[in-house]
Amino acid sequence: MNILITNDDGWGTKGIITLTRLMLPFGKVYVLAPEGPRSGAAACISVQKPMYLTRIDNPGEGLEQAEVYVTNGTPADCIKLALNTLFDGDDSKIDLVVSGINHGSNASINVIYSGTIGACMVAAEHGIPAIGYSYCDHVPDIDLTEAEKYIPEITRHLLEEPMPYGICYNVNFPVGPIEGIQWTRQCRAHWEKEMEPHTDDDGRTYYTLVGTFVNHEPDAEDTDEYALAHHRISITPTTIDTTAYQLL
Amino acid sequence: MNILITNDDGWGTKGIITLTRLMLPFGKVYVLAPEGPRSGAAACISVQKPMYLTRIDNPGEGLEQAEVYVTNGTPADCIKLALNTLFDGDDSKIDLVVSGINHGSNASINVIYSGTIGACMVAAEHGIPAIGYSYCDHVPDIDLTEAEKYIPEITRHLLEEPMPYGICYNVNFPVGPIEGIQWTRQCRAHWEKEMEPHTDDDGRTYYTLVGTFVNHEPDAEDTDEYALAHHRISITPTTIDTTAYQLL
Repeated sequence: MNILITNDDGWGTKGIITLTRLMLPFGKVYVLAPEGPRSGAAACISVQKPMYLTRIDNPGEGLEQAEVYVTNGTPADCIKLALNTLFDGDDSKIDLVVSGINHGSNASINVIYSGTIGACMVAAEHGIPAIGYSYCDHVPDIDLTEAEKYIPEITRHLLEEPMPYGICYNVNFPVGPIEGIQWTRQCRAHWEKEMEPHTDDDGRTYYTLVGTFVNHEPDAEDTDEYALAHHRISITPTTIDTTAYQLL
Repeated sequence: MNILITNDDGWGTKGIITLTRLMLPFGKVYVLAPEGPRSGAAACISVQKPMYLTRIDNPGEGLEQAEVYVTNGTPADCIKLALNTLFDGDDSKIDLVVSGINHGSNASINVIYSGTIGACMVAAEHGIPAIGYSYCDHVPDIDLTEAEKYIPEITRHLLEEPMPYGICYNVNFPVGPIEGIQWTRQCRAHWEKEMEPHTDDDGRTYYTLVGTFVNHEPDAEDTDEYALAHHRISITPTTIDTTAYQLL
């Protein structure tokens, strides 16, 4: 198997290094990740901007078998770059895209802003199986001990059946002890109070993104948020088809 | 009505100036748009980056009634900034978000990369009715004569019924004479051969995004691509719920 790994926190973060190590037993591992943080990149692509590709010669202890590259582009760019350079534009040469482990939740409405899942959606566009792994804590030194136990098993399980065209998996891990795995749907929610005002050195007002998460359906038992709140791993099958069929 | 306009091509482009003029008869028009091009921004948000808001005092002839602002952020940021600054964080104060008129198609797979629709999705997250208008030609001096005739009518029609939570409309105009309007779904397609190599002054290779569009279902009559190829305006109801329900 040829496995392509990316993320949106950038190469060198604990999540992607852990994921790279976990994927090595599955086959030949290629990593192509942003050189720095790209949180909130969604499926943003670099239009009319030059993209560079740099090989990292010593990705670290235990990762010698992985081929690691970084780019100044976005997570979505990473998939397009890898496909069109490392794999000669041939979709069938990539058996699996794995994205993450993200430092922070990509459950509920966060999915539409997620660079982790944005990369998976590009893979799904190309019919390449893709899984995004996220851990619901965004500190740099996340404790992935519990998640590590489950990722190989979940990966094997999701690969057992062919993934339908245009679909990827959004897998989120709760913080703390894990009490199960649940198939889920995206919970309805929104963010409010998102702009924090500041004053710069010239006296000009600027804003930074903050916010309060508002769950619209905290009691619905089939959502990703419900699973996570009940110490379960949530697995949400996620589609690149944005059509609201109920209105047609 | 309070109408909020944004786009991903940046303030000053023909598409958003035309849209602003067309929306003035509908109510009080606020424009908050990126200061420069943000094509391919999807729902990218500015995480840990300062965002500035600048009022444009003279937006141009015929637009004196509009309140126009620009930001260094993304189209998705524009909605969050407007909501949390101009409208005090109160969703109910914005009656409609209109995004565009985009210079270029947002039909088919392009929707997942679209900053135009990314902004609409943020509005939909907040339960605000939202329509993205795109014209299938990306030259700066697009001829919007035909589109202009239809936009007021389509806007009025889409506002007649309340838009369900989490749903917005992706409206695309064909180039040339228009022969009708069609409700459509997102066509299956992918882009290939997307990376064009170049050599910079230091002899380093870099890539720019290009590509060939591959339609997976050119004969399916219910898609946005089919409608556009048959000189019809396509209207695709578009959801922020990315769950692949068929797999649950």
